[in-house]
Formats: sequence, C-alpha cells, structure tokens
Amino acid sequence: MEFREINRAFFNIGNEPTAIEINAKAKALKAEGHPVISLAVGEPDFPTPEGIKEALYRAVKENRTFYPNPRGVPELRDAIAAYEASRKNMPISSNQILVTVGGKPIIPYTMYLLTNPGDEVVLLEPYYLAYPYWVKVFNLKLKVVRLNEDGTIPFDALRASITDRTRLLIINYPSNPTGAMLTHEDMSRLLLLLDEFPSLYILSDEVYSRIIYEGEHISPLPHSPDRIILLESFSKTFSMTGWRLGYGIYPEWMLEYLVKYNSNLLTGPATFVQYAGITALTDPGVQRDVENMVKEFRRRRDYVGQRLEKMGFKFHKPSGAFYYFIDVGMDGMEFSRKFLEEKFVAVTPGIIFGPSFGNYVRISFASSMDNLEEAMDRLEDFLK
Amino acid sequence: MEFREINRAFFNIGNEPTAIEINAKAKALKAEGHPVISLAVGEPDFPTPEGIKEALYRAVKENRTFYPNPRGVPELRDAIAAYEASRKNMPISSNQILVTVGGKPIIPYTMYLLTNPGDEVVLLEPYYLAYPYWVKVFNLKLKVVRLNEDGTIPFDALRASITDRTRLLIINYPSNPTGAMLTHEDMSRLLLLLDEFPSLYILSDEVYSRIIYEGEHISPLPHSPDRIILLESFSKTFSMTGWRLGYGIYPEWMLEYLVKYNSNLLTGPATFVQYAGITALTDPGVQRDVENMVKEFRRRRDYVGQRLEKMGFKFHKPSGAFYYFIDVGMDGMEFSRKFLEEKFVAVTPGIIFGPSFGNYVRISFASSMDNLEEAMDRLEDFLK
Repeated sequence: MEFREINRAFFNIGNEPTAIEINAKAKALKAEGHPVISLAVGEPDFPTPEGIKEALYRAVKENRTFYPNPRGVPELRDAIAAYEASRKNMPISSNQILVTVGGKPIIPYTMYLLTNPGDEVVLLEPYYLAYPYWVKVFNLKLKVVRLNEDGTIPFDALRASITDRTRLLIINYPSNPTGAMLTHEDMSRLLLLLDEFPSLYILSDEVYSRIIYEGEHISPLPHSPDRIILLESFSKTFSMTGWRLGYGIYPEWMLEYLVKYNSNLLTGPATFVQYAGITALTDPGVQRDVENMVKEFRRRRDYVGQRLEKMGFKFHKPSGAFYYFIDVGMDGMEFSRKFLEEKFVAVTPGIIFGPSFGNYVRISFASSMDNLEEAMDRLEDFLK
Repeated sequence: MEFREINRAFFNIGNEPTAIEINAKAKALKAEGHPVISLAVGEPDFPTPEGIKEALYRAVKENRTFYPNPRGVPELRDAIAAYEASRKNMPISSNQILVTVGGKPIIPYTMYLLTNPGDEVVLLEPYYLAYPYWVKVFNLKLKVVRLNEDGTIPFDALRASITDRTRLLIINYPSNPTGAMLTHEDMSRLLLLLDEFPSLYILSDEVYSRIIYEGEHISPLPHSPDRIILLESFSKTFSMTGWRLGYGIYPEWMLEYLVKYNSNLLTGPATFVQYAGITALTDPGVQRDVENMVKEFRRRRDYVGQRLEKMGFKFHKPSGAFYYFIDVGMDGMEFSRKFLEEKFVAVTPGIIFGPSFGNYVRISFASSMDNLEEAMDRLEDFLK
C-alpha cells in the first residue's frame, strides 16, 4: 500500500462509515436473507412522479442526448430562475444559476471559489458530512458552533467564532438531521453578521425547503443576494435522488469562474435529465404529487414521533425534512451496530453529524408505514 | 468585482476560449439566422443507438431512480470489468472500476490522489485542455513535451523531463486532436520509463479507443496495471456525450480513497443512465451500430482528407478519433475567427492544445457529409 503517495484529503474525516456505507452493510445482511429495514439513508422512498418520467422519455426521443451547456441547459436555467424568483419573491436572473450533478458539488465549488488555504469556514453542528470533508480537502480551518437544542443559533458563540479570515458560514434549514427551521429572528441576526464581516459569505443549503410540516420555509437569500449562495436540489422535493440534478444560485459575477471549473470537471448533469427538470418545476400535476408526498411524510412523522415518545425518548419534533434525531443515552455507533445486528434495523449514528452527537442516532421516516410500524416494534423490543 | 477573493484556479489557463465556448459563439450566429456549420466540438453527430435508449426507458419504468452506489451500480461495474478484460485480454476486477460522470472526472481524481502541491505532471503536446487546467488547480508543476509530427513520442525529451518529483504522465491515444495511435515501440519505452521511475504513474486517456480506421488500438494497461490508470468514456464510442457516463480502471488499492472523494462530490451518474450503460457494452445490436458509425466516420475522414490535400494542406491522416489537425500557416485563432465570421464555419484554434500549435486549427469530421461538403467548399472560397 503506497500510502506515502496518498494526499491528505483521502483520509477519513471524523468517525465515518458514512450513511451510505452503513446502508451497504444493511444491504449485505438483507442479501443473507435477514428481514432488514433501513431507516439510515436520506432519500424519499416514493417513485419519481410519472410526469417527470414522461418528460424524460420525450427528451430522449427528441435526441436531447448531446453535450449540455456547462452552465446548464438554458431552458432549465430560465425555469429555475422563474421558479425561485416566484418562491422567494425577488428578482433572479438565469445568469445566476449553475446547474449541477445533484446539489453537493455546490459545496466544493463555493468553498474553492471563495477561499485560499488557511482561511476559515464555520459550520453549525449537527452538520452534513460533506461540509467538513471539503473543508479538509481544501486545507481550510474548520470552526464548529453547536446549535441550541431547539435548532436555533447561539449567536454569541457564532459571532465569537468569526474572524477576518472567515470566508464562509454554512447553514442548513430545514435541517438534516434535526428538522429544525430557520427562524425570522436568527435570519435577521445572520444579516447583521454579514454587515459586520464584509468578507463573509453564507452558503444556504435548502434542499429540504419543500418538505415542511409546520410553519414556513425561510430563506435568507432575498435579503442579501450578493453575499448568500443558495444550494438546492431536485432530489428530496421530487424524489429524484438517483437523477443527480441540483443547482446553485450565485451572485452573477461568480458564474464565469464556476462554469470553467464545472466544465473541466464534468460538463453537467445528463442533458435529458435537465429537460425533465423543467417539467418537475413547472408541471401542476407534479406539484400535486409533491403535496401528496409531504402529506404522507407528515402522517409518518406523527406516527414515529408518538412511538418514540412512548418509548421515553426526548426530542424536538421535526418541522421539516424527514428525520428524528434522538439522544439514545449510550454510544450511538454501538447502538446502531447492535440494533442492526440484533433487530436488522439500520439507523445512522449521530457522530457523523459532529463530535457532540456521539450519543445520538438519526432515524429516517422516508420509509413505508408498514416498515415504520415494524421498525418501531423492533426498537421497543430492542430497548427492553 | 471582488477579485481579491478569487482563487488562482479560476483564472484562465492559456489562450482559451474553450472549444465549447467557440461553439456557443457559433450558436449565437446561427440564432441570428446565419447558415452556421460547426466543426468545432468533439462529439459524434449520430443519435444514441436505439437499444441504449430502450434500456434507459426500461430502467426508469423499473424505478431505477434512487441513489446509485458511489462506486457505480454493481451490475455496470461487473459489465465494464468483463468488457475491458475481454478487450485487453487481461484479468480486471470490478473492484478496480470507478464509474464517473463522463470520463473527465478521472483527470482531477487521479491527479489529486497521486500528487501533493509542487509535484510534477508531464503532458504530451498537443494535449486536451482539461489536463493543464487541473495541473494548475492542484498547484502542480506542468512540464510539456512536444510530440513528433507523426504523433510518436520523442523519448529522449520525455525522459529528460521526468524527475523524482514527477508523479504523472498523461497520454492520449488515439489522440485528440491528431488522430495518431500509440505504437508498440512507444509503448515498450513507456514501460521502461515506469521501471526507471518508481513513483511515476501513467494516466492513459483512451476515449477514442473504438473509433479506429487504420491499425489496432494499443493500450498499455495490461502490461503494467499497478502503475497505469485507464480513462474511458461512453461518450464517443456510443454517441452518448450528453449522458455523462465514463469510468476509470485503477489499481484496486486506490478505490477506497477515490470513492470517498466521488461520494462527497456528486455520488455518481444518474442511476438509470448506468443501467443503460450495461446495454451499451453488451448488446450485439449496439455493437453493430458502433461499427456503422465508425464506417461512416471513415468515409467522412477520407472525403475531408482529399479536400484538404487538394487545398494544399500538409498533415498526417488520422488513424483514429474524428479530427484533422492542420497547420494553417497563420495565427489559428485569427483564422478561426475570420472563417466563422466570413463563412460561418466554426473550427477549433490549435492554441488550446498547447502553445506550440498557435498556427493550427482542429477540424472535426463528426458532422454530416452534406455539412462537410459545404464546409470544405466554403474553406476553399475562404482561402482564395
């Protein structure tokens, strides 16, 4: 093993296995014939709405099979600009949109654009695994601020963590894994921080923005579009995880640099997938499908919440996304391993969301009611 | 414009506009109503074979729409391993395969895995644009060796360019832009270089491996699989440029690092696209479609070659790929601009393939015979 040749970036970050790797272990047990239920992966279990599939068939039949524009297919960028302008009640130009292979590339693209090695990035804990990965890859200094128990931001701690070398703060509301929403009060304070630190940018990861059960989704983007970058994805909203389609909304001047990077890296998502994305955003039937999915998620959320409460867990009920993030009162990795091995239910150890959450696990309710009922029965058994 | 915040990697490398950007200018002229013919972009003009499209429809109908494994869909990796093992007459394990969004990501993935800032990468000129881009992004030292006029490797010069800090040599046969093939003699010498420099790896970009008119494609992979990385793509062979599907074959020990990188960056190509890729590799009807495409490319190659010869150009006739790379005896950028503006034919300035080729242009014959005839007539007019 020629480890001397391995770049630092390829080493583990924190206590992975990742959620996807845990799912792989669950799959292996399933392949051995065990009745595995996986509540470990962050994807809706619904098939992609039929209207989107039909749009894909049409696009392929029309031979939309040639290289896409590396900014994204123009008609899709227009559709995204119109869709987001309407949702956020602000002007958005197609020239601010970069279409990407899922939403994830926006994380490294943004970090790479705005930082040089040694600069600082602030994450709010619990955080999504890919954030600290790229902080490490780009040789940046990681600063972590633990969120309040209810998911709100502890502003004194956050402000104290920011210096003149801080280039980026990443926020994620509705939150994976807590389901917390951004409050108006927190948003106002974030805007004050941008005023106070003129070289700070905010990357706002809003991929769960349409999976909401209580209240409304608040995006800070309209209030400071020159300093905030939006990360969005078709994956969760439209049950399109495997389609690999997402986008960033950037201040317009950033685009020429990002396009060069994107173009030399991968060009973009499949052309016909981008055409199908237009239908996802604009078709009324698809919007009804999304409403129905959210309705079903709410039913599951309420059911799982009741069961967990009865088992004595304390938690904040998620207002968005599709996870419970609960303190299991013991090492969460150990808990997850045992629960999978003994009861064949996969959940995600909290440690991957940050070192403060060693005693937590994340339970996804993006699974059928039958699965959730059975999994909750097994959890009850497991705890006995 | 906040240029102080722009990372060095986002600046231009060499004399771009890229091929894709030139194509955009051609599109703009076309939109204005001009009879534009683009011979500037590197993609087959054929529709994707029907069998591959059918496989895509099936995969979507079967709801292959969920997250793919970040190594690639296992059935596709098995198919790739079998296909390449048979073509290269060597054992290849699925555990050596990383499926990527087109072939391009293999360039940065490999560079990043094998290098640290300050290490050296050797390119053979003319080279593909994305190679020096990533050399610059990763803060590596670029060394360039100009190929002989017939596309063979000047070994004394190459050997003299390699030091103990040289981590990677990138080769590309059949060559874009010259259409030259790797010779047995050059391959043997490359293997000697690997013996002499134990920390050197070769990245072999073979995306045109099945678009061959004379001789046979020679891959060095079977002769030193521990030290050679293969970059392949479905784009050219199967006319699937817009599908964004490619792969790397790596020494097995490298995979765990690459998968982490790929997984945090973008997960992988669309799941249903990967299933369709299995059909591309294995379906007999698709293989006949490929043969027919190559037959048509050969016809066009011969036609364009005759016309160019008559106009007095000197060149080596391409044995593979689908380009003529010709010395136009004046600044190639100027030539390309004028030819597009006056005669509405887009070609690619040679300068993007390296500073030695300022007087060259690349002419793609991946366009219909009608287009090629008309374009050659216009070129003849233009030269008068």
